[in-house]
Amino acid sequence: MLTRIDHIGIACFDLDRTVEFYRATYGFEVYHSEVNEEQGVREAMLRINATDDGGASYLQLLEPTREDSAVGKWLAKNGEGVHHIAFGTADVDGDAEAIRGKGVRVLYDEPRTGSMGSRITFLHPKDCHGVLTELVTSAPASADHSSAEH
Amino acid sequence: MLTRIDHIGIACFDLDRTVEFYRATYGFEVYHSEVNEEQGVREAMLRINATDDGGASYLQLLEPTREDSAVGKWLAKNGEGVHHIAFGTADVDGDAEAIRGKGVRVLYDEPRTGSMGSRITFLHPKDCHGVLTELVTSAPASADHSSAEH
Repeated sequence: MLTRIDHIGIACFDLDRTVEFYRATYGFEVYHSEVNEEQGVREAMLRINATDDGGASYLQLLEPTREDSAVGKWLAKNGEGVHHIAFGTADVDGDAEAIRGKGVRVLYDEPRTGSMGSRITFLHPKDCHGVLTELVTSAPASADHSSAEH
Repeated sequence: MLTRIDHIGIACFDLDRTVEFYRATYGFEVYHSEVNEEQGVREAMLRINATDDGGASYLQLLEPTREDSAVGKWLAKNGEGVHHIAFGTADVDGDAEAIRGKGVRVLYDEPRTGSMGSRITFLHPKDCHGVLTELVTSAPASADHSSAEH
């Protein structure tokens, strides 16, 4: 069951400049950053609020690390903007299978690794009224983020 | 201060079909629906989770009521997809003025009426790395939604 908006994924050409825009304009700070080589992105997570399922909602800023990554190709076609939305669930495997059973194309056979050690999959935007949709199960709270939210 | 992701605005050609997709696929139910003649949209709010500022996060599904509305023109150009994102604040007037003072174009001179009696304004997407960004101050809790979340 999907219990929160986990994040909004925003594609940008220059991660550092975009992070600085969100900090200077709204006061949002970087909660976590990483490079995901499989997805071909360098990313920053800005934590916006906590949610009543025990999780949180983030902005995920994404800069491609290579032009032939999914985000790189999307940026070349569309320019900067909202790339995908993500819903949080305690059971990405079960929810992905249930949704596949309703005729919506799930892009991965098995969930892969997403931000902060999460497990993720994506639904085909053409089956979701034009919205690339991600399902996320967060990793168990880690020592570096559970004790102090920085 | 912006304290939550208030909603993700999604433009669609057929509101009833899109509502049914979100219900059948994810189990999301319509929390509120209305027509906003000023914005030229018919809309449905799907409440996804509560937030730790006392608000909530929604999906806002938008169907234009006329082709020359902002959403109608956007749909004709882009097709269905994420139209804007919205942050919640207790003080849309003050935040809009502060952000205008940083050189970001605010689209309205004064906030206008948004979903569920909220007060809203928008920031120019070209000043926000391609993201049409809304600021929202919710109306005080109303009798029809505060007692029972339907």
